[in-house]
Amino acid sequence: MTLILALDFGGTKLAGGVLNLGSQRWLRYERRFSPTNANASSDLEMMRSLIHSLLQERLPSAIGVSFGGPVDATTGTVRLSHHVSGWENIRLKDLLEAEFGVFVSVDNDANVAALGEHRFGAGQGYDSLFYITVSTGVGGGWIVNNQPWRGAGGMAGEIGHIIVDPSGPMCLCGKRGCVERLASGVYMARDVREMLENEPQRRKEHRGGEKVRELVGGNLDLVTGKVVGEAAVLGDELAEQILYRGAGALGVGIGNVANLMNPQRFVLGGSVTKAGERWWEVVQKTARETALPEVDLEIVPAALGDDAPLWGAVALATQGLPTLGFPIYPTP
Amino acid sequence: MTLILALDFGGTKLAGGVLNLGSQRWLRYERRFSPTNANASSDLEMMRSLIHSLLQERLPSAIGVSFGGPVDATTGTVRLSHHVSGWENIRLKDLLEAEFGVFVSVDNDANVAALGEHRFGAGQGYDSLFYITVSTGVGGGWIVNNQPWRGAGGMAGEIGHIIVDPSGPMCLCGKRGCVERLASGVYMARDVREMLENEPQRRKEHRGGEKVRELVGGNLDLVTGKVVGEAAVLGDELAEQILYRGAGALGVGIGNVANLMNPQRFVLGGSVTKAGERWWEVVQKTARETALPEVDLEIVPAALGDDAPLWGAVALATQGLPTLGFPIYPTP
Repeated sequence: MTLILALDFGGTKLAGGVLNLGSQRWLRYERRFSPTNANASSDLEMMRSLIHSLLQERLPSAIGVSFGGPVDATTGTVRLSHHVSGWENIRLKDLLEAEFGVFVSVDNDANVAALGEHRFGAGQGYDSLFYITVSTGVGGGWIVNNQPWRGAGGMAGEIGHIIVDPSGPMCLCGKRGCVERLASGVYMARDVREMLENEPQRRKEHRGGEKVRELVGGNLDLVTGKVVGEAAVLGDELAEQILYRGAGALGVGIGNVANLMNPQRFVLGGSVTKAGERWWEVVQKTARETALPEVDLEIVPAALGDDAPLWGAVALATQGLPTLGFPIYPTP
Repeated sequence: MTLILALDFGGTKLAGGVLNLGSQRWLRYERRFSPTNANASSDLEMMRSLIHSLLQERLPSAIGVSFGGPVDATTGTVRLSHHVSGWENIRLKDLLEAEFGVFVSVDNDANVAALGEHRFGAGQGYDSLFYITVSTGVGGGWIVNNQPWRGAGGMAGEIGHIIVDPSGPMCLCGKRGCVERLASGVYMARDVREMLENEPQRRKEHRGGEKVRELVGGNLDLVTGKVVGEAAVLGDELAEQILYRGAGALGVGIGNVANLMNPQRFVLGGSVTKAGERWWEVVQKTARETALPEVDLEIVPAALGDDAPLWGAVALATQGLPTLGFPIYPTP
């Protein structure tokens, strides 16, 4: 049997799985949390132990890797991690190839998740799709003409940094009103926190916030995107305002992308997409209003959930194998 | 010799050319203006006479057609023209195939111009590019992985209708602050005209307008995008304000597209791109500011000028021929 090893360096967690080529069931699958003080070395060490536990002395025929950060996919070099230090210019492909002696392919998580959904998930049978992850940040990955499209410099997919409101709040990237600044979990949490810390002034403008306080037991440092989503579903007006402003910004972004690229499907994954039905309704509605009437628009939830990058890593790995019964993606 | 016939139904003008396969020089080339009261029948009649003058009794081996309006490229059916009446659902491919008995391929002008620039112009040797025409309207055409990308429903490329300022002026499409609403010749002319007609109120907000009045001899009905561009170059403050607001909106749109698709090159054509150096500077600057620092950005003028659609029609036509010495595009 031809064994495939799939790895996911996810920033806060590491995951891996092995399966036989052609199968859609893991032989073994493991997920571990990366400690908050992790660095590249400790992550690599933890992943190495995870790999040995997965392989049980067997050797894989190919390895696919999803990395949660910018990657030069042509060389399999990690550019950096926004979450874990020490990842600058780590030649992850070379490192793993030297250790296992087999073909290794590495790409960033949004591109890999797009591949995963295309081959195994909500994008099966679609020749074009845009996968969007709405989580800590907002990123995306393309399938165009049945092939991944990474961009001339490997930078395609950055829907998080298209501007939807030039008079909106300032993003870390230096621009105002980016999709990520409005729709990502981290920024929504920050906005709610700041409004609550700034109580007297807020009172004049907004109501709500009580459910948020309850959910975090009064400790505003514990406000996360998830808390904002939960408070909104409980009817907290402040949380609703921030959550659905984010959904609207994402919807405008999606509508713009539809006008520009007209993909067959948009597939949305990531923690924020679990914020409930109304979040989805706002996204769908604003996307529909932004797209031209002649532009068909289909937005669906990711089918593979948090495992999309891992399944995509399976697809990535198989591109190094010569004869397969399903579409082969070009080596990045 | 294998003769190729290229046709361009341009809204206000009709053009055609014939050349030998593989050559980059027209054997014959003609351009005629379509009268203001033209309809589909009169345009077709005029094009028929132009074709006969071009062919001189010879028969082409294939025909490529650029049409200035939405086209279903898979069937070669014109959906409509925004400039000339009677074009609704005209099966232009079938019509010409019946008349000439050879393969005919039809697509909209932005897609065809992108093809033309890719094969013969500023996009030669680039495996991805976005061609943008900034003229009466604003539209675009994609080359991705060396292939035209028309979108799942043939609607890709509509950069004119991505929103760059949600609090901006209302566009015919029903949204506010589209790129086309701010950057197209027709809308810029309308904005200048309306501001001048509304003189007393305008005086409070803006200066300028005198050069515009001079250029049209006081007849505001004659204000066009070209006049706005000329007045701006002469230093008219009102014209400058409108022209460079448009350039900025286009720049933001291009920066957003760069983040999303990261094409190797942007190629800009159309009358508004002739508005002078400062227009280009504003486009370049805002695009650079909008794109992420890691995203390379190259924006160049179209090399084929108004003939880009005609050269693209040559490329379109050749896809119907089996053996060629250059890349073959898939039949739309």
